[in-house]
Amino acid sequence: MQTARWVTVMKPSFIREILKVTAQPGVISFAGGLPAPELFPVPELVAAFADALAGSGRQLLQYSPTEGDPGLRAVLSERLTERRVPAGPDDILLTNGSQHGLDLVAKALIDPGDLVLVENPTYLGALQAFGPYGPRIQPVESDEEGMLPGALADAVARERPKLVYVMPTFQNPRGTSMGAARRTAIAAVCRQAAVAVVEDDPYGELRYRGEEQPGIRSFWDQAIYLGTFSKTLAPGLRLGWVTAPPALMGALKLGLQATCLHVGTLTQRVAAMVLSSADYPIHLARLRQEYGRRMSVMLGQMESAFPAGTRWSNPDGGLFIWVELPDGLQSLDLFHLAVAQKVAFVPGQPFFVGEGGDSMLRLNFSNSTPAQITEGMARLGRAIAQLTGAGAPLGT
Amino acid sequence: MQTARWVTVMKPSFIREILKVTAQPGVISFAGGLPAPELFPVPELVAAFADALAGSGRQLLQYSPTEGDPGLRAVLSERLTERRVPAGPDDILLTNGSQHGLDLVAKALIDPGDLVLVENPTYLGALQAFGPYGPRIQPVESDEEGMLPGALADAVARERPKLVYVMPTFQNPRGTSMGAARRTAIAAVCRQAAVAVVEDDPYGELRYRGEEQPGIRSFWDQAIYLGTFSKTLAPGLRLGWVTAPPALMGALKLGLQATCLHVGTLTQRVAAMVLSSADYPIHLARLRQEYGRRMSVMLGQMESAFPAGTRWSNPDGGLFIWVELPDGLQSLDLFHLAVAQKVAFVPGQPFFVGEGGDSMLRLNFSNSTPAQITEGMARLGRAIAQLTGAGAPLGT
Repeated sequence: MQTARWVTVMKPSFIREILKVTAQPGVISFAGGLPAPELFPVPELVAAFADALAGSGRQLLQYSPTEGDPGLRAVLSERLTERRVPAGPDDILLTNGSQHGLDLVAKALIDPGDLVLVENPTYLGALQAFGPYGPRIQPVESDEEGMLPGALADAVARERPKLVYVMPTFQNPRGTSMGAARRTAIAAVCRQAAVAVVEDDPYGELRYRGEEQPGIRSFWDQAIYLGTFSKTLAPGLRLGWVTAPPALMGALKLGLQATCLHVGTLTQRVAAMVLSSADYPIHLARLRQEYGRRMSVMLGQMESAFPAGTRWSNPDGGLFIWVELPDGLQSLDLFHLAVAQKVAFVPGQPFFVGEGGDSMLRLNFSNSTPAQITEGMARLGRAIAQLTGAGAPLGT
Repeated sequence: MQTARWVTVMKPSFIREILKVTAQPGVISFAGGLPAPELFPVPELVAAFADALAGSGRQLLQYSPTEGDPGLRAVLSERLTERRVPAGPDDILLTNGSQHGLDLVAKALIDPGDLVLVENPTYLGALQAFGPYGPRIQPVESDEEGMLPGALADAVARERPKLVYVMPTFQNPRGTSMGAARRTAIAAVCRQAAVAVVEDDPYGELRYRGEEQPGIRSFWDQAIYLGTFSKTLAPGLRLGWVTAPPALMGALKLGLQATCLHVGTLTQRVAAMVLSSADYPIHLARLRQEYGRRMSVMLGQMESAFPAGTRWSNPDGGLFIWVELPDGLQSLDLFHLAVAQKVAFVPGQPFFVGEGGDSMLRLNFSNSTPAQITEGMARLGRAIAQLTGAGAPLGT
């Protein structure tokens, strides 16, 4: 049975291999991007499932409209507009998580050979979603705020791209964000060339300090925006959404019908109930407080445990910190030393399109307790020291 | 914003337009393919959601493996193997409903220009799932048992198809099934040419009479099989599965990761719990009894209410009856007369690839009560009589 061409050109997922290693007992893993299960709003979800099924269970178990629960779209519209991502209820399409939104945007826009421009490094799942539709994917030069508007303008002038993909807030893998000026400039380049731009925003509501930034849609109403409940409620629900201009909504709905008819009816209603509840702001505040604390612990421990010359990003939110090793040391070499110390991370290279990231690595802080973070940073510091040869191995 | 090519060549969905018409008050609709909400196992689902969340809620709300819940795959494997669709747990991949299975099979196999062979008439949702991957779709001559093996062998000899798509049991739209000999012959043609064949089986467990038939996989272990919980539990859960040979499983998993990472964790566990419960066989028996009764009422009423010369299929299960009007009368003309009589159905033409079906129509009996079926058949009989000119309009 011969599979489609994209299957054969797909890079095997190095990250999945890593996650296997890190599942070994005793390993403290900063590799995944998982939220903390102890912070899931379980009582609220239990109550919402029970109430929803008791109230209108039969209706919530039937087929339902493609675009999703009207009540959920209404409450999302309010929240997004407050957060400066202007969107009416009809501009929102519910999806099986953000990943499904990436798939639908690609399905609606990409013909084989079309050009897609991405930040470098960028979110791997986006490359995986786009791949099957056969685009050419090119990186645009990026700095700590993400994609450079000048480099984007040059790329747009050279060749007409079909899609520009950015994660302006707490980017995966860097953890860093675009300021307002950068967002304005990226929006302006895309608007002037009428090139579709996707703002992927899984972490926007997980801000621990600094000021909230406007969405790209606040500068150009044709921008596409992807959101998710995976980080604020629970990823196991598989619920997210696309916010798109009316001109694209028809194609996105056709794509959604083709992939699953519609998203789970009951799950949508449950999300609407939890989002509308008086307790939801308290839940969000608790998430921000606890994740913010974990991030601070990690940043503080890095300061004391990492050898001089190691550098790292200083995010205002999200789930990740990005580390650059001193003297061009290789993060893949470090990985093997770290696993021996029973601590894990993701080396930087897989996040890059083409070359790059060899001396970089990504650390997640949301899925470990402060105590694990403290111990894990000590282990990782020892591994870096071993690699730099700055001292005899301090542990094992 | 220029959308992908498939969007512009996609036929607008006539059926969606029809479903709008049929939502008008007072209309008795046999148009959709919805299960009866009054037969959903609501108490069982309520209990399962509560028990699952109480037992291991946090784990069921977290990200989970691509292939799906091991317990659910184990119980599915047992049930399928009993039903002569041999499959181990590792041959099963959970999906967001059968429609997602169709999308994943297409994503894994189809490159633009590849040939896909389908029955004629066939399930519209399959054409919608395949469309975005750019195949050429050709119908194979079909009779009341579905695809003709001789015609399939000719098509396979002429040109190497990438995929053969059949619905051997209670086909949508005809309602009819392949006997064992036809299944064997279709499997043999595909096996000999090593062409991927998909058995789509949303209705197999809804048998009201006659003997259960073996799945195509019982004749060729490389056959792909699509199943769903939409008709036996509830469609609002959006839960189904693909059963595929090991050689294809890797590509299907990559596709699933690309489209949604994995299917809802909690929903899968709930389905596993309901399927494993002692009450499940009672639920299934009740479904079969009630749907069987509705089918009998519809067939009986057609006998008395429809003018001579009208013919219809006589299914052993599923959700649909297929009607052929006398003297080549047009079902689209009938549709307008029927809507005036406040009764609705789907005309046959949209189910055909190319020409055909102009004098045919599809009736659903699962989503109407016996009383509605009786009244609706009387109305439809009057509309057909009007169309044949066999008498003055009897009603309105």
